[in-house]
Amino acid sequence: MITPPDLTRLFSPRSVAVAGASATVDSPGHDYVHSLRVFGFEGAVYPISRSAAEVDGYPAFRSLDDVPGEVDLVISCLPNSAVLDLVAQCAKKRVPFLHLFTGRFSETGDAGAADLERQLLAACEAGGVRLLGPNGLGLYHPGGRIAFRPDLPREAGGAAFLSQSGNNAVEVALRGNARGLRFGKVANYGNGLDLTPARLLAYLAGDPDTTVIGAYVEGVPDGRGFFEALKLAAARKPVIIHKAGRTAAGAKSASSHTAALAGSTLLWSTAIRQAGAIEARSQEQVLDLMVAAALLPRAAGRRIAIVGGGGGRSVQSADAAEENGFDVVPLPDAVREQVRAKAPALADWVGNPVDQSILAGSGLSSNGLLELMLADPSYDLAIANVGEDWFLGRPDGGERLKHACNRLAAIAGNSAKPVAVVLGATETNEPEYRQVLDEVRDTLVARGLAVFPSVERAAWALGRLAP
Amino acid sequence: MITPPDLTRLFSPRSVAVAGASATVDSPGHDYVHSLRVFGFEGAVYPISRSAAEVDGYPAFRSLDDVPGEVDLVISCLPNSAVLDLVAQCAKKRVPFLHLFTGRFSETGDAGAADLERQLLAACEAGGVRLLGPNGLGLYHPGGRIAFRPDLPREAGGAAFLSQSGNNAVEVALRGNARGLRFGKVANYGNGLDLTPARLLAYLAGDPDTTVIGAYVEGVPDGRGFFEALKLAAARKPVIIHKAGRTAAGAKSASSHTAALAGSTLLWSTAIRQAGAIEARSQEQVLDLMVAAALLPRAAGRRIAIVGGGGGRSVQSADAAEENGFDVVPLPDAVREQVRAKAPALADWVGNPVDQSILAGSGLSSNGLLELMLADPSYDLAIANVGEDWFLGRPDGGERLKHACNRLAAIAGNSAKPVAVVLGATETNEPEYRQVLDEVRDTLVARGLAVFPSVERAAWALGRLAP
Repeated sequence: MITPPDLTRLFSPRSVAVAGASATVDSPGHDYVHSLRVFGFEGAVYPISRSAAEVDGYPAFRSLDDVPGEVDLVISCLPNSAVLDLVAQCAKKRVPFLHLFTGRFSETGDAGAADLERQLLAACEAGGVRLLGPNGLGLYHPGGRIAFRPDLPREAGGAAFLSQSGNNAVEVALRGNARGLRFGKVANYGNGLDLTPARLLAYLAGDPDTTVIGAYVEGVPDGRGFFEALKLAAARKPVIIHKAGRTAAGAKSASSHTAALAGSTLLWSTAIRQAGAIEARSQEQVLDLMVAAALLPRAAGRRIAIVGGGGGRSVQSADAAEENGFDVVPLPDAVREQVRAKAPALADWVGNPVDQSILAGSGLSSNGLLELMLADPSYDLAIANVGEDWFLGRPDGGERLKHACNRLAAIAGNSAKPVAVVLGATETNEPEYRQVLDEVRDTLVARGLAVFPSVERAAWALGRLAP
Repeated sequence: MITPPDLTRLFSPRSVAVAGASATVDSPGHDYVHSLRVFGFEGAVYPISRSAAEVDGYPAFRSLDDVPGEVDLVISCLPNSAVLDLVAQCAKKRVPFLHLFTGRFSETGDAGAADLERQLLAACEAGGVRLLGPNGLGLYHPGGRIAFRPDLPREAGGAAFLSQSGNNAVEVALRGNARGLRFGKVANYGNGLDLTPARLLAYLAGDPDTTVIGAYVEGVPDGRGFFEALKLAAARKPVIIHKAGRTAAGAKSASSHTAALAGSTLLWSTAIRQAGAIEARSQEQVLDLMVAAALLPRAAGRRIAIVGGGGGRSVQSADAAEENGFDVVPLPDAVREQVRAKAPALADWVGNPVDQSILAGSGLSSNGLLELMLADPSYDLAIANVGEDWFLGRPDGGERLKHACNRLAAIAGNSAKPVAVVLGATETNEPEYRQVLDEVRDTLVARGLAVFPSVERAAWALGRLAP
């Protein structure tokens, strides 16, 4: 059985030293120090530099030995030739955690570099130093006031993300935040030598601050341990695994990237499912699943109500829902009678999905229908198409759209059943439309709704999470 | 065999009468007249109204009979009860084309309305009046200065789109334009009673101004005719078919929308493929395919070069390429030796896909590699990941990003091989990032590049079009 390591002081260090710190803006040795300042890190920050007297306002030290206080975490921007010496210094000073941004190890394909990587791991194990990396950006944990890039969002939340790739971690953080995800513990573990994906996952499984976990993996050194940890985590919270390097070309590319051995796709898919986790096959799917898992309550079943958009969108929505395993339950009599009371001519025409275009002038809106359908025991969950392009073509379209979205936000926010909102990406050349679409999306997201750019993506994500 | 109708005067009428015209802004009877003005329609415009003396500045007439000149097209916003009389007037005045925005026919599920629809078709056939609709928005043809909404893009081009659904036609027009598609003949044919999808398609097949055709269909009244027309069109230009109403729920919804009978999914897919057309299963796929077909040259084969983005993106790109049937050919020796000359340490490490992150400081960029790879006979086409999130985290990130994109546009623009560009959707909460991403995307699109929001979507679209 895998023993979850205690990574409290890795994600929330009380003091951080940056080895290879630099006064040169736009160098990693500067940016790691600068990020701590930007994020309001409250503990001691010790830049270590042979040349600079201070870095970003923090007095620098010549070596780790010279640092006066205790150090919970050392971040290394040194070249690979310096890392064994650094590990020795960490061991001597009893530094519990070392993160190596330093790369050029086994991922280069060079035999000497791979040998150095083996020595590195042995030295860390012998010295009692837990290692994150090498060849990774390290940590982004807004709650701990630490980040691998100063421009990442500062709002903290319960979404954890593990990533073998650094750029992918940055993209998920930025894009996820724009969709309402608030991140907790994010780690780009690179080559994952000591703190493997399995160990990181096992830690997050038991971390009370983590409510949903996403992970991007190209390969793992210890398959059995990984799936043990995955099972542990998935039993407690939603876990989404994006396994890349699924193809021969992808696996080849992965091995030159982070020295990961990518295994068989089918084996991975089966194991992910058996562990109770959910598989994503693209970053888009990771984000859609994390948004749905983090922002929506769980559905009790698969009977879906769909409203909004014109007739074409209704047909497309029904297709997407059924193709993702939902039951598009016809409008129940109770709801139909409520429609009849207000709009007799529509009562025998309107259905599920609700076609917004036939409601015009009836005194009924798709929001009104959504409210009726959510209140009916016939439905377990809903998808609400905003149908923004229809609004935009009308006078005061922006105001009408905002009004409808506010009403939708109130209905969805009060619902114990999950309601996914579909608002398209801002794809228009009209500057006025761009502004109103961005504004409406921001409002919906700020009110905590799960917003998807297409009904197909909404239905796909909901379909993976529904019982 | 299907005989293509001559629809020249439908799409480019010399004079238009709007029956049921209205002085009330935000009513269809006003907007059809207003759109002609906004689009600079050069022929005569005749609003027909019992109450208004003029509509949007055009003098109104009491009836079609009162209109002095010839009328090529009548657009009807009248209630369904008035259409038989209107058809009689059109026949009397020898109006060749009638478009019925008027709805509430068979799509309501009402027997009386379905009967009226049958009488309507019979009257049109007897009177020699070709009918577009009923229950459709009608025409958007910027080249003919006519549009079913005044806010649609005015740039004209060769992309045709047929749509059973009105909202879907609007969305495709707006979103496609933002991605660089310039539209020619767009028709929302609604119930498609006389001018069926088959007849419209047969016309577009022979239309020299149409270079690529997309179509959204829920069902067709004459399957054999449709596939004959499809074969005819696909033999001459790329044709993309989005068949909705694929599921039981979707088909049910389709029948209440436009009275279309949706057939079996498998049968449709097979027939589309056999006709030489390409199937899309979402609006997103329609747009991706039309963008690729309209903006890129045809690839000679499936050997793909991939550049840009970090290691994670490289792995994901390789997966996407191989999963869509491409051969991710290793970097050929000739290119590798050119790399060696500039960056010896990278020569045995860099591969295809090119990982941008390992190039830093080498004097080589992924644009440089792209240029070398496109010039090499080993490759038939390329995908270029912009890798925007990496740029944005750096000082002057916006300027660097713009510079790299300009270089990319020059390389892709000069290439006889197709190059798909991947720039993510603008998903960030940083106002500064939003602005630069929108600006960079606009520039790439304005320079005629095919831009996709994810590598998976790029690879999917390219994969459907490659030989």
